[in-house]
Amino acid sequence: MLPTSITVAEQVFHLAKAVEADLPELVGLLADDVLGAEREGRDMQPYRMAFQEIDGDPQHCLLTVRDISGVLAGTMQLTLIPGLSRGGAKRLQIEGVRVGSSARGAGLGAALFEWAHEYGRSRGAVFAQLTTDKRRSDAHRFYARLGYEPTHEGFKLAL
Amino acid sequence: MLPTSITVAEQVFHLAKAVEADLPELVGLLADDVLGAEREGRDMQPYRMAFQEIDGDPQHCLLTVRDISGVLAGTMQLTLIPGLSRGGAKRLQIEGVRVGSSARGAGLGAALFEWAHEYGRSRGAVFAQLTTDKRRSDAHRFYARLGYEPTHEGFKLAL
Repeated sequence: MLPTSITVAEQVFHLAKAVEADLPELVGLLADDVLGAEREGRDMQPYRMAFQEIDGDPQHCLLTVRDISGVLAGTMQLTLIPGLSRGGAKRLQIEGVRVGSSARGAGLGAALFEWAHEYGRSRGAVFAQLTTDKRRSDAHRFYARLGYEPTHEGFKLAL
Repeated sequence: MLPTSITVAEQVFHLAKAVEADLPELVGLLADDVLGAEREGRDMQPYRMAFQEIDGDPQHCLLTVRDISGVLAGTMQLTLIPGLSRGGAKRLQIEGVRVGSSARGAGLGAALFEWAHEYGRSRGAVFAQLTTDKRRSDAHRFYARLGYEPTHEGFKLAL
């Protein structure tokens, strides 16, 4: 059983699977970011449709992290991906990571990733993978501190 | 309806969703690679378990590509990932790409990616993403020619 709260620098944060009522705050957190600001919209309908797909598939876990006053402090989306390569290895893919500006620097990000890794291990994942925009140099240092290795080039193409 | 065959340099290749009987050949193709050789094993059991998980989830499409004599010429795993970020964008994730050494250089890889992108679009994906080992410089040039942009750093961590 994974813990549903984490304590960082004497502050307690509650972790939960996102529900639809979380969406406006989640989108606000995604947009509260130098790159996210230009990528996120105001119309909630596409987010609602995406949420229903995420929520309806047990391979995804969209996580909310709230402080004791209920303010959304962080989010990440965890996806389990089975695959043949690397000996039939299951991957834990981590997308859409945000820690609110008020909670940064206190260790919440690192604690959240520890939780995510334990979640992955408990479901049979043997490695975690994520990509981060090359402009996010702070994020690169953060992932390196957690033990992540920048072994791959991350490509994207608009369809 | 997506085409189930592609013609490259007057050679016809048949595309199909992988079945369990394809596994030994698929693993052989994954291992027939400078990096794959050290990553793949001989015991089929972990591959069978991974295959069953892939096959049981409609969000995945593990593809086999065979030439007209039935020889396996390529494979890739396509996964649709809904997400909140980027306006609730659905991603087409591409993993485990291999084109057999006998079929390389003739344009099969590019044709296969065209097929994959059409598959993604037909299922609502608005961008494709993949990562490739930084040592695969030929692959980087190949993806750049297809229009992919190397905007992201790809991190991995053993769990």
